[in-house]
Amino acid sequence: MPEFRQNKATKEWVILAPERGKRPSDFINTEDKKESTQTDKKKCPFCPGNEDQTDKPTLVIPSKGDWQVRVVPNKYAALQPNLATTRTWVGSFLAAKGFGIAEVIIEHPDHNLTLALMELDEVGNVLRAYRERQKEISKNDKINLVTIFRNHGKRAGTSLGHPHSQIIATPIVPPHVRYPMEKAVLHYDKLGTCVFCDMIDEEIRQEERIITNSDNFVALCPFAARSPFETRIYSKKHMPSFVAIDDEEIMELAWVLREVLGKLYYGLNNPNYNYIIRSAPIGDEDTRYLHWYMVIIPKITIPAGFEIGSGIYINTIAPEESARFLRDTKTK
Amino acid sequence: MPEFRQNKATKEWVILAPERGKRPSDFINTEDKKESTQTDKKKCPFCPGNEDQTDKPTLVIPSKGDWQVRVVPNKYAALQPNLATTRTWVGSFLAAKGFGIAEVIIEHPDHNLTLALMELDEVGNVLRAYRERQKEISKNDKINLVTIFRNHGKRAGTSLGHPHSQIIATPIVPPHVRYPMEKAVLHYDKLGTCVFCDMIDEEIRQEERIITNSDNFVALCPFAARSPFETRIYSKKHMPSFVAIDDEEIMELAWVLREVLGKLYYGLNNPNYNYIIRSAPIGDEDTRYLHWYMVIIPKITIPAGFEIGSGIYINTIAPEESARFLRDTKTK
Repeated sequence: MPEFRQNKATKEWVILAPERGKRPSDFINTEDKKESTQTDKKKCPFCPGNEDQTDKPTLVIPSKGDWQVRVVPNKYAALQPNLATTRTWVGSFLAAKGFGIAEVIIEHPDHNLTLALMELDEVGNVLRAYRERQKEISKNDKINLVTIFRNHGKRAGTSLGHPHSQIIATPIVPPHVRYPMEKAVLHYDKLGTCVFCDMIDEEIRQEERIITNSDNFVALCPFAARSPFETRIYSKKHMPSFVAIDDEEIMELAWVLREVLGKLYYGLNNPNYNYIIRSAPIGDEDTRYLHWYMVIIPKITIPAGFEIGSGIYINTIAPEESARFLRDTKTK
Repeated sequence: MPEFRQNKATKEWVILAPERGKRPSDFINTEDKKESTQTDKKKCPFCPGNEDQTDKPTLVIPSKGDWQVRVVPNKYAALQPNLATTRTWVGSFLAAKGFGIAEVIIEHPDHNLTLALMELDEVGNVLRAYRERQKEISKNDKINLVTIFRNHGKRAGTSLGHPHSQIIATPIVPPHVRYPMEKAVLHYDKLGTCVFCDMIDEEIRQEERIITNSDNFVALCPFAARSPFETRIYSKKHMPSFVAIDDEEIMELAWVLREVLGKLYYGLNNPNYNYIIRSAPIGDEDTRYLHWYMVIIPKITIPAGFEIGSGIYINTIAPEESARFLRDTKTK
């Protein structure tokens, strides 16, 4: 059974998920093998024809006929939905059962297609699936935070090649999310504005880190980017949670997202990346001081001792330069 | 010139160090090449005979005769010592010149030796070099934090195979360090004790995550370990900064550290790892609520979208099991 544990000093939580894992001896170092993430299509549990290898879907788009998007419970979930959330003491340490919801968004029937190359309405359907599932999962009283993310490529932590994203919903709002909230409250109490709205306005004013733009969204390499080509997509209007996005905005976001992923794909030759949609915790969807956004992090550099120790990232490419490169890259 | 930049929302700092880096097109994805970190000895700037390839050392041990440890300014430093620390505004964003001190501790003349296999007094000399340089650098009024770290192996971010550690001293205490301090103050104000001392006592009482022990130090896999085999070495007595360690304790720590690194080396076949010594900020060396420690993180798993997005790490091996494995591993 998975378990949450809290670091007594820092108050950070971890998830112990031993059933996903292996024995210590499985971690003995071997020479880097060239492992492919491209599972054999016949064996791929996400490919059409193999639907019986996954649990009953929580969402299928379109709802009739051949599916494009299937959302299914994660078979190798780090958290389980049928557990209590009571915190318990282990001596003077805090723990809790590993309650949570973990789902996989299978984005497309085509095993070898990636989001950057899909049709616009297909990308829109993936984003709609995110929103619908986030909305539904948020109704669970025990859930406090929904994290949506995509790991692309082996170096970004994917084990399956078939295009997919993930949702993990936790009963816990971790310090990593809470601390920036506290800063945002301080900013709001001081200036009466959403710090994210202010940051976005300033980025638009300074212009040089903007990659692309639509009526409601902006994609940019942020002023304090932690790594080369780190990109963020923000809603220009104040919107604390991704659940509030409407159908028209979904299609606009689909265009901006595909544009950014396309520029990475063509400009950097399909790099490994992680992307994450960060929303306000459940219950804070209408707050005046938070703002959802999408962060796309090409997996190009390795955070080493200094980054892990200090949390200060060393970025060897100025975001102005990253943005210029991506701006100038043509998508086909 | 390197530059600090602050994320307006989260108050996290990054370092832009473009002179270390490359042009955007240098980051175009290529198939994983099997690159060795084993530089040719003849060309290795850290090997005996090539001392003229590094700047004048800031410390040599022993001070006469053949050197064992040489500390030199980092030639590819992300920060530079001759800059002002004044914060400046870029529109409404905060930045500062990249002032800081970056040094390399060359640990041994032997290009192919690693810390796990050195003689005890050699390990002791490396630790002494850390302490001496931290002490000296701390005298600089503009420095607020000294981070000592070691990246072992390519996957841990090393570019040079010759055994070495690094020191980076910054004028900034980042949120990553400040937040746990705030928690420690809350704990101190509530209970009147150092939260780290309490945590260490509890770990010793629970016993099952202890790897090894000496009079003054304990090595353990913490209750809320973020990844398999994550190990911490703590001083059993309250000590906020590594600079306070005395010569006798240095030799005891050398034994504990070599024991832990040896267990990783033999038990996991010389895995890639990062280790970090975290000390209280300069000026807080005598505080009652902080505690220096060493954290050793074998580079076995990849933090992916969920970890980056939530700060919640999924650990597939319980620290009790990691500790048992390391406890049972014989060092030769």
